[in-house]
Amino acid sequence: MVVDLDASDPLAAFRDRFLIPDGVIYMNGNSLGPLSRDAKERMDYVVSNEWGNELIRGWNSAGWYELPWRLGDKIGRLIGAASGETVVCDSTSVNLFKAVAAAFSMHPGRNKIVTEAGNFPTDLYILDGLRGFVGEDCVVDIRPREEVADAIDSETAVVVLTHVHYVSGALFPMADITAKAHAAGALAVWDLSHSVGAVQTRLNDADVDFAVGCGYKHLNGGPGAPAFIFAAKRHHAEMHQPLSGWFGHARPFEFADDYQPADNVRRLLSGTTGVLGASALEAGVGLMLEADPDAMQEKREKLSSLFQQLIAEGCAGHGLELASPDKAADRGAHISYRHEHGYAVMQNLIDRGVIGDFRAPDYMRFGFSPLFMRYGDVERAVKVLREILNSQSYKNPEYQNRNAVT
Amino acid sequence: MVVDLDASDPLAAFRDRFLIPDGVIYMNGNSLGPLSRDAKERMDYVVSNEWGNELIRGWNSAGWYELPWRLGDKIGRLIGAASGETVVCDSTSVNLFKAVAAAFSMHPGRNKIVTEAGNFPTDLYILDGLRGFVGEDCVVDIRPREEVADAIDSETAVVVLTHVHYVSGALFPMADITAKAHAAGALAVWDLSHSVGAVQTRLNDADVDFAVGCGYKHLNGGPGAPAFIFAAKRHHAEMHQPLSGWFGHARPFEFADDYQPADNVRRLLSGTTGVLGASALEAGVGLMLEADPDAMQEKREKLSSLFQQLIAEGCAGHGLELASPDKAADRGAHISYRHEHGYAVMQNLIDRGVIGDFRAPDYMRFGFSPLFMRYGDVERAVKVLREILNSQSYKNPEYQNRNAVT
Repeated sequence: MVVDLDASDPLAAFRDRFLIPDGVIYMNGNSLGPLSRDAKERMDYVVSNEWGNELIRGWNSAGWYELPWRLGDKIGRLIGAASGETVVCDSTSVNLFKAVAAAFSMHPGRNKIVTEAGNFPTDLYILDGLRGFVGEDCVVDIRPREEVADAIDSETAVVVLTHVHYVSGALFPMADITAKAHAAGALAVWDLSHSVGAVQTRLNDADVDFAVGCGYKHLNGGPGAPAFIFAAKRHHAEMHQPLSGWFGHARPFEFADDYQPADNVRRLLSGTTGVLGASALEAGVGLMLEADPDAMQEKREKLSSLFQQLIAEGCAGHGLELASPDKAADRGAHISYRHEHGYAVMQNLIDRGVIGDFRAPDYMRFGFSPLFMRYGDVERAVKVLREILNSQSYKNPEYQNRNAVT
Repeated sequence: MVVDLDASDPLAAFRDRFLIPDGVIYMNGNSLGPLSRDAKERMDYVVSNEWGNELIRGWNSAGWYELPWRLGDKIGRLIGAASGETVVCDSTSVNLFKAVAAAFSMHPGRNKIVTEAGNFPTDLYILDGLRGFVGEDCVVDIRPREEVADAIDSETAVVVLTHVHYVSGALFPMADITAKAHAAGALAVWDLSHSVGAVQTRLNDADVDFAVGCGYKHLNGGPGAPAFIFAAKRHHAEMHQPLSGWFGHARPFEFADDYQPADNVRRLLSGTTGVLGASALEAGVGLMLEADPDAMQEKREKLSSLFQQLIAEGCAGHGLELASPDKAADRGAHISYRHEHGYAVMQNLIDRGVIGDFRAPDYMRFGFSPLFMRYGDVERAVKVLREILNSQSYKNPEYQNRNAVT
């Protein structure tokens, strides 16, 4: 049956576009997407030709200057943005700061930012840094997930949430929460780090105000790839963000002393574009744009459901506890299981070629990327997991005591 | 004579470490340093092996996690910082925001930031963004260069200056101005973008508080390479910056909800490290660390003086006006000349293989990088410039009307 699924997979040909090492089943595209042939070729070209031969002329001849919005528009197609609403720059953390600062400053007199406890930590940390900076009257109201919607009130300036939870994969109802924010007179900022390339996302259909997201996960942009930032066109004229560097200037190469923001989404840019990182990301995004979004969504859910089903059938009684929504349609492109020895089990899996990751205190995460994963990979991964749990090989001190940051 | 200079150049062997295209005399290392063989090899390795084969494990196995402070310490050796005072991250613009915000917040009750008119624009723009953000009582006092020192007073929280001017190359007396700031009870933040790798810089000898700088100029880190940020150790415990992302957390991989800043310079980090860009930069910095700093300084001044002398001898009467300090020791590693048709002359030079750049309204800049430039290059460059000026070939509309951003 699994063999049949691979044989009839309309996305099967994409597998060969990636350079996955032999013997590896890569279930961590939700943390760092793998290298594609396109990205490798693009990096060779950017380094040797654009940097090496064009040198400073590359800003013109190789299109480096336009890269933030050229690539932003490509990502925009994946997230339901219009052309001219998305730019690529900086990290997700820095972009979240800009987006929330811009949204917050559009609401003088309102002092509250609503977010979720257990949100991805950098989002909470950035809000904390912003709060300390904009003045003592700013409050970050951190609520348990189920209380977030009710916490949005007439004091709320901005609601800042992550669309797909980084551990559970649970989906926040983006359109509903955004509507609730707007009804209260607030703005909504969404972090799409675990959504972009992972679930179909329609920012403009949901009337989202600002969004940010990550380039190195499902977009396969390379380690520490630059992030993106989206602003709905209706806010462009009014929005101001404090990291007003020269690339956000209307005419950066006039070298004027006075800052004059670009009259479009480019005012969200700050410093000089990191061309190497953005170029690898452009290759990853280009590959994803070749694939049919509906086919990707269908395959993600089927991979994820198959994994869940095979674990339920083959790994019962070993203390694994599902930490994600039960239905694949209610979660992003990853699934988490808790296990008392989750850290050691994951290290054992990694050493046997099944690469997922671990999140404290006891979550094992497994990602499902429709472009390079096969149904057979899922079957083999569960087989290895079953062997590890049956044999308790994870009790080897090598796995228990390993010092790994990710 | 020039032939002799190259024959006896102790740094001559470094030329072959760079991949300068045939026929190009590259006088723009002050804007974008050229590709080195080391950087090309490093990028091949990072892409194919670290990203391609190590995948997510690269954070541990390839040392990505330590990259910001490992590389920061290497840059620290070039700028007179102690180990543990410099990290690599983000852009110069973003890092300047962090440094000035940290310094400003250490001076409650003082409301003034002193800087220079005609400073590199992004520095002024970032100060403007910061000012709008920290509150209406913050004043950015932008003074002509000669008035800056006298503007530092008991209201001044922070002095923000660029060590080597991006157009003229003129050196601010870093130690004197920093001493003046300290005497007034203020802190000093220096932008080293045109200094690092270009002039010998001794931050701790000058008692500097914070500094930032660029990776893509004289460090040869590649287009849009990440920047660095320095904080004197005495400030580490007290400094707080608002872009408090997860990489600045004491234990980022514990994924705690509460931000707890690292107890060292790492609290200046924000988001995830851009590994591709930082890796190219590490190659560039490594190459520079192989060279003798005194020999580099001597050769820079000799290249620069030779250019100036040959222009004075060969290009008189063509309207070129020196826009830099007269003595090489009083300027950084570039020199600027004004010319009524500077833009077109530079385009003409570029098309003839002599690559410098242009800065509005009429400045032609030429950089001198001791690792890859030869005295013979300087001689040939002036010969081409003389031919262009003599023939007035720059009057070709092709050069006058070209649309180039850099």
